[in-house]
Amino acid sequence: MSASSFSELPEPPYYVVTFSSQRTEGHNGYLAMGQAMAELAAQQPGYLGMESVRGEDGFGITNSYWKDEESIRAWKRVMDHVAAQTRGRAEWYSRYQVRVALVQRAYGFTKKDG
Amino acid sequence: MSASSFSELPEPPYYVVTFSSQRTEGHNGYLAMGQAMAELAAQQPGYLGMESVRGEDGFGITNSYWKDEESIRAWKRVMDHVAAQTRGRAEWYSRYQVRVALVQRAYGFTKKDG
Repeated sequence: MSASSFSELPEPPYYVVTFSSQRTEGHNGYLAMGQAMAELAAQQPGYLGMESVRGEDGFGITNSYWKDEESIRAWKRVMDHVAAQTRGRAEWYSRYQVRVALVQRAYGFTKKDG
Repeated sequence: MSASSFSELPEPPYYVVTFSSQRTEGHNGYLAMGQAMAELAAQQPGYLGMESVRGEDGFGITNSYWKDEESIRAWKRVMDHVAAQTRGRAEWYSRYQVRVALVQRAYGFTKKDG
């Protein structure tokens, strides 16, 4: 998945789906799939944003943010459908872990210019 | 923060603190601080694990996992204390965002050998 930058989100409560994954060696169409999935996610009802990063060792974390549980379930059905049509997770990931969580509070810091 | 691998966690519910950040240029003692903070976190009551990754562009996500809100609040007091004693966030990060969330369900996939 792409989107290696901050999502601008509403005030909590909202949901985060945090996806930790270890990539296998080689591309195997992964980059194109990631881009397509990110674009597809952004079209879903209840989608709020996505933040994603992968290190050189292939370990990555993607957080996607959603309005409610129903929008997460609908998105999972879309992903399962895509996975069924592609070589999918057994080829792209040696391991992954999904955690669905209700964001209760949020705060941040932005450095002032100058 | 270090720990670029999967945490072995109990069944939900538990909490995740997801920390998205953009690093400034240069090290400025950041790597040593990150290592020290990860070791300190692991000693805190209620600590369950940490997963962290940062890309080449300096954007990173660190998830730390906690038993309950009280352990998160206690850890924040420790971090604020450390930040007050160091050059801290204004030097290390151009921006960060912290989200505290209750993990309600989790599932995963591990590739079988062979």
